[in-house]
Amino acid sequence: MKTRAAVAFEAKKPLEIVEVDLEGPKAGEVLVEIKATGICHTDAYTLDGFDSEGIFPSILGHEGAGIIREIGPGVTSVKPGDHVIPLYTPECRQCKSCLSQKTNLCTAIRATQGKGVMPDGTSRFSYKGKPVYHYMGCSTFSNFTVLPEIAVAKIREDAPFDKSCYIGCGVTTGVGAVVNTAKVTPGSNVVVFGLGGIGLNVIQGAKMAGADKIIGVDINDSKEDWGRRFGMTEFVNPKKITGDIVAHLVNLTDGGADYTFDCTGNTTVMRQALEACHRGWGTSIIIGVAESGKEIATRPFQLVTGRNWRGTAFGGARGRTDVPKIVDWYMNGKIQIDPMITHVLKLEEINKGFDLMHEGKSIRSVVVF
Amino acid sequence: MKTRAAVAFEAKKPLEIVEVDLEGPKAGEVLVEIKATGICHTDAYTLDGFDSEGIFPSILGHEGAGIIREIGPGVTSVKPGDHVIPLYTPECRQCKSCLSQKTNLCTAIRATQGKGVMPDGTSRFSYKGKPVYHYMGCSTFSNFTVLPEIAVAKIREDAPFDKSCYIGCGVTTGVGAVVNTAKVTPGSNVVVFGLGGIGLNVIQGAKMAGADKIIGVDINDSKEDWGRRFGMTEFVNPKKITGDIVAHLVNLTDGGADYTFDCTGNTTVMRQALEACHRGWGTSIIIGVAESGKEIATRPFQLVTGRNWRGTAFGGARGRTDVPKIVDWYMNGKIQIDPMITHVLKLEEINKGFDLMHEGKSIRSVVVF
Repeated sequence: MKTRAAVAFEAKKPLEIVEVDLEGPKAGEVLVEIKATGICHTDAYTLDGFDSEGIFPSILGHEGAGIIREIGPGVTSVKPGDHVIPLYTPECRQCKSCLSQKTNLCTAIRATQGKGVMPDGTSRFSYKGKPVYHYMGCSTFSNFTVLPEIAVAKIREDAPFDKSCYIGCGVTTGVGAVVNTAKVTPGSNVVVFGLGGIGLNVIQGAKMAGADKIIGVDINDSKEDWGRRFGMTEFVNPKKITGDIVAHLVNLTDGGADYTFDCTGNTTVMRQALEACHRGWGTSIIIGVAESGKEIATRPFQLVTGRNWRGTAFGGARGRTDVPKIVDWYMNGKIQIDPMITHVLKLEEINKGFDLMHEGKSIRSVVVF
Repeated sequence: MKTRAAVAFEAKKPLEIVEVDLEGPKAGEVLVEIKATGICHTDAYTLDGFDSEGIFPSILGHEGAGIIREIGPGVTSVKPGDHVIPLYTPECRQCKSCLSQKTNLCTAIRATQGKGVMPDGTSRFSYKGKPVYHYMGCSTFSNFTVLPEIAVAKIREDAPFDKSCYIGCGVTTGVGAVVNTAKVTPGSNVVVFGLGGIGLNVIQGAKMAGADKIIGVDINDSKEDWGRRFGMTEFVNPKKITGDIVAHLVNLTDGGADYTFDCTGNTTVMRQALEACHRGWGTSIIIGVAESGKEIATRPFQLVTGRNWRGTAFGGARGRTDVPKIVDWYMNGKIQIDPMITHVLKLEEINKGFDLMHEGKSIRSVVVF
């Protein structure tokens, strides 16, 4: 079949909207009509050429929502008509990681996904007879895409696509970091570094989990209103305090935070986030993706005196199990998404979405098909 | 009263055995007759001048066992005749840390302890009319010493002093790191870096906790026999393998260890210990004390993909609550101590104990009074 898609023919060039060829689903695969897709920093990271493992030409996008239109042989867990969210972190429920019950990092299709192909080693996309590669196993910047059955989460049919797509990455990453990875408990003090989309979702996750103080840290004062809208109780601009940001936060939290979250990707901030944790038990969670080659560092004394340094990917969420729950939380009003969708674009406007992100003018731009 | 003690008059000089004056216990304090004391690397660290906060003249020693001989006003939890282990990490059961139920790092007397004095700000020891300072709140290199009531663990009376003293630091640090901090579960794969006394106690803790593979790593082949005696199942000498030690260990553990322990104090090894952990859930515990100013580092990707970096002090053990249990474990044969006590010395021979340690000839030297 043919489908309209935004193709990244090469790094550092705008996406091109073209008709590509799409092979139907093979065994264990499904065809999904994408109804909406968010534009995430990770797409920009690859398009801007920062990802040394980026593959071109490819169809980017990994934060979508849509409807199953066709299933390949052997597919049993979903059927045509089901509403789904594609999963860049699949959930096979059979690999060592899935069976460990200790991580969401399913390894079933990791090798082929990283190479831009389906588990059989080939791409379903092509343009003028030449292969176009998949991206993060999703390629949601295409009106139709093919995914492995284990890489779609079935969700309720009353969830609007142009909101629920954000659960495919940003919402789950932020809320999940609080709920699944940190396991924030009621009454905790929380510090969130970086109030972009992920940071705001951490804030609303912490609020939902019953945190007491939720302190947002950002060098941009305009983020204060955004933070407060989702449950932030105090705002700190590190450029506007006197003295050290770590000491300032330790003081604000009576000895240090119970949980801190880095949503900046800046390794210096990651260290501050660890060191702002309470002696004895404070846990710092790295969410942000650092620049290639950058390292985190601290004195081991920070850990010996009881701070924990951890990280999270996709919010520690098992895609098929946890993503439908987060959709329920949204539909039940436990978390908000609508105010975060600052721009709704047509596919033809997708490059504008990247521009808005680079200019810091959007929380989340969503493309609707 | 007068008591015989080994006094550290200044850094980098041998201890001198002299009679010092000791004031009796004030309110909330107890007088303990020390019957035996281990000589620990931390004592040597201070004596050798590496501790920038080291105070002289002082009476070192923090790994003892003895008998309560007198109690000050208000003391209710122990009485003369009770057998006790002094605690450099006290347990007041009233401070924020104790009440958190999340850490053993009681802060009740931290400030004064760090200054070498009792909680009232004065020292009980003096020599020729001038104060001699306490060390780590214990000063077990003295036949008699005074401690706060909250800094002694009452233990069973049939435990031999010359073995149970080791529970005052090394045994609890190693076994506790496994049991309290890492919470190693049966069937786990464990890697222990550094097979000195702490490493051997981690090994026997891991064995007691039901670990499957217990891999010991040391650059000294003579440690292999020691490790196997306490439950080590495999030995790796990093100097004798081809290729990278991390890759070697990941391969030996089918993807990485569930738990790793650094018992070396070397920050490069600390990084290896983290990176040898299994993706998704592996936890690395820093036990070793690093050189002043040294930092640990890694790529944040190591944490984002699910490894946890933690540390432990005094094995995460609450002194008054957990130390008596470890004494029971020893008396019931669940853990061994006797083979680790390689040298028993008189107080007059205490400097020989330091020499044996520096020469790598002892696991633990114990001084008996």
